[in-house]
Amino acid sequence: MAVNLAPPAAPLAVPGVRAGAASAGIRRAGRLDLALLELAPGSRAAAVFTRNAFAAAPVQLARAHLAAAAPRYLLINAGNANAATGAPGLEAARACCAALAARAGCAIEQVLPFSTGVIGEPLPVERLTTALPAALADLAPDGWTRAMQAIMTTDTVPKGHAVRVRMPDGDLTVTGIAKGSGMIRPDMATMLAFIATDAALSTGALDAHLRTAVARSFNRITVDGDTSTNDACVLVATGVRSGAVDAAAFQDALDAVCTTLAQAIVRDGEGATRFVTVAVRGGRDGEECRRVAYAIAHSPLVKTALFAADPNWGRILAAIGNAGIEGLDPQRVAVSLDEVCVVAGGARAERYREEDGQRVLDRPEYTIAVDLGRGAAADTVWTCDLSHEYVRINAEYRS
Amino acid sequence: MAVNLAPPAAPLAVPGVRAGAASAGIRRAGRLDLALLELAPGSRAAAVFTRNAFAAAPVQLARAHLAAAAPRYLLINAGNANAATGAPGLEAARACCAALAARAGCAIEQVLPFSTGVIGEPLPVERLTTALPAALADLAPDGWTRAMQAIMTTDTVPKGHAVRVRMPDGDLTVTGIAKGSGMIRPDMATMLAFIATDAALSTGALDAHLRTAVARSFNRITVDGDTSTNDACVLVATGVRSGAVDAAAFQDALDAVCTTLAQAIVRDGEGATRFVTVAVRGGRDGEECRRVAYAIAHSPLVKTALFAADPNWGRILAAIGNAGIEGLDPQRVAVSLDEVCVVAGGARAERYREEDGQRVLDRPEYTIAVDLGRGAAADTVWTCDLSHEYVRINAEYRS
Repeated sequence: MAVNLAPPAAPLAVPGVRAGAASAGIRRAGRLDLALLELAPGSRAAAVFTRNAFAAAPVQLARAHLAAAAPRYLLINAGNANAATGAPGLEAARACCAALAARAGCAIEQVLPFSTGVIGEPLPVERLTTALPAALADLAPDGWTRAMQAIMTTDTVPKGHAVRVRMPDGDLTVTGIAKGSGMIRPDMATMLAFIATDAALSTGALDAHLRTAVARSFNRITVDGDTSTNDACVLVATGVRSGAVDAAAFQDALDAVCTTLAQAIVRDGEGATRFVTVAVRGGRDGEECRRVAYAIAHSPLVKTALFAADPNWGRILAAIGNAGIEGLDPQRVAVSLDEVCVVAGGARAERYREEDGQRVLDRPEYTIAVDLGRGAAADTVWTCDLSHEYVRINAEYRS
Repeated sequence: MAVNLAPPAAPLAVPGVRAGAASAGIRRAGRLDLALLELAPGSRAAAVFTRNAFAAAPVQLARAHLAAAAPRYLLINAGNANAATGAPGLEAARACCAALAARAGCAIEQVLPFSTGVIGEPLPVERLTTALPAALADLAPDGWTRAMQAIMTTDTVPKGHAVRVRMPDGDLTVTGIAKGSGMIRPDMATMLAFIATDAALSTGALDAHLRTAVARSFNRITVDGDTSTNDACVLVATGVRSGAVDAAAFQDALDAVCTTLAQAIVRDGEGATRFVTVAVRGGRDGEECRRVAYAIAHSPLVKTALFAADPNWGRILAAIGNAGIEGLDPQRVAVSLDEVCVVAGGARAERYREEDGQRVLDRPEYTIAVDLGRGAAADTVWTCDLSHEYVRINAEYRS
């Protein structure tokens, strides 16, 4: 079902990182559901986490560990989110970290735990720890492909992307993997993303680069407006490559990795049949452009019309009108679908013909462009349609 | 598909009101799509309208007419919303009012127009005016049943409710009809409601009663979070009954009519298979209770789980956590499904068993009760699930 999304090429190895995976049978037997990333000593990390008030146990623990020590291992399981599990859930996450730390000979704080899957079920700690030796034995510089498979839940396609940047004193690599396909919206989705580089960067620089990239990528996508309890995006720098780093070039590379991963999540949106860019300009500030873009991207009426390839532009206007933009003048609003101007002056454009709109909506991907006609700001979000399949997937997810 | 919703008994006649309907063939031939309510001279009216920035032409005109004169006719068409139609749309609405005013011998400002249906299509004025003689000829005190049928769009069941109140100097009647089943959320839905009473009330009193009733009913429902361009709720008092009015008793009667109509809209929600009350208490103020209630009621993940009768309470917690309540302590949050306590202290209640939650979710209607554990405020909204049928209806609505 994914829209223009093929399985990625094997992600580039990152000097100083080994990746691996194992089958722990956490929810179903026989599939990869445990991923491990091992970071060279001296690696630095930055992360952003979900803002959901019910942040899962691993999120709470990863936050605390990251504040206490430089990480050596990222331990990720699929199949169980270990969320809304109270004190026993925190204990379970800690037990997994402790088991890995004991085997690997590092401090427990040097293990960052991540979980994704069903909320509210106890984490099967023993299954997870039993699989740790296999995951450790699987570690290899080119293990990213298996790791990106192991973190999938309702994803239909694994997600990875890597960029190599040529710099005066040698190449630099940025490689990322991600999972997520539903519960996707700004302020992080049910989304895990792990990105590594061999560049030598301070923790402060890493943090700034990551926040900038996330704002431009993962926080600009939405599938269904829901935000999970487990979202996390981690950026690790091993520093194995010791040369100087051009900050702008590094940011570009990181943005490219994050944007590709974020768009892959939408392309693989649950039940998605269309990949849609909602580009809003002419706003007084970026914030109101985002509000309009999300009002469109979150409207079930718009999303079902996109699924039906029905150029029902009235629903787009109604969504714009619902965004709560103070003093919006409908008569200055324009809407286009790719190259087709549909609405001008707040009403159907004179030269618009239904078959032109239809031609665009039959495409697997297109842009809904809105001009608010009241300023110079702009912003863009990426979304997908709402299909029968979305309902089926989410109605049947636990059954 | 409607949940526990039978066609209502014939609404009670209201002294001073005659109702009628006709087939104008606005969108499809052979169905009632034009409704007319005639009000006795001296009637007073109050109304609330959509806050959508793209308020439809009839909404703009009805607002202006209501401010200028006491209405004699409410002219309602289904099949075409006359929204996002620019200046020609306003002219079309005006032409319909003028045609009726000329035939009925009143001022154009004494006609309030209302439209519901597809957005962005030109209103077929001639079809509508051609049907006016038939609608006028159809007017009768007991014409409410045909009028409530004529205003339906995707509704599967007509919606009407009436209450007779015994007062010291004679009975008083409150009768209402409504339409709406999608695009339903607070601040008015794609929803039209027309309520009449024979009581003698000032315009100011009518307005206050109406706003109170709407806040307790139509602004507490949601189907899909979308708000239409055409919503309106009108309360008319003919004053034919001249006796004193007990304000509290009248408010109770009006609340009962509005709440029954509002709940009927959710019960008939597009594709609805469940009628769900979301009751939030323990908040610091009503506003935060409403935010939590709507976060649950708008979550596609919660709504698809309700459709599947899957007691996936983790999704309810995730929705609560997404409501953006500053300083919410997850460990004080409790959730019940009817009589079954599911979450206590922010995690699964010790005595909770899946089959107990299942038993509740198999019911056609039930209550999701949330206690935020941080105050004494409470609020309630009503919603429905998100089914395959919702997607089908909204994907096929124009095709």
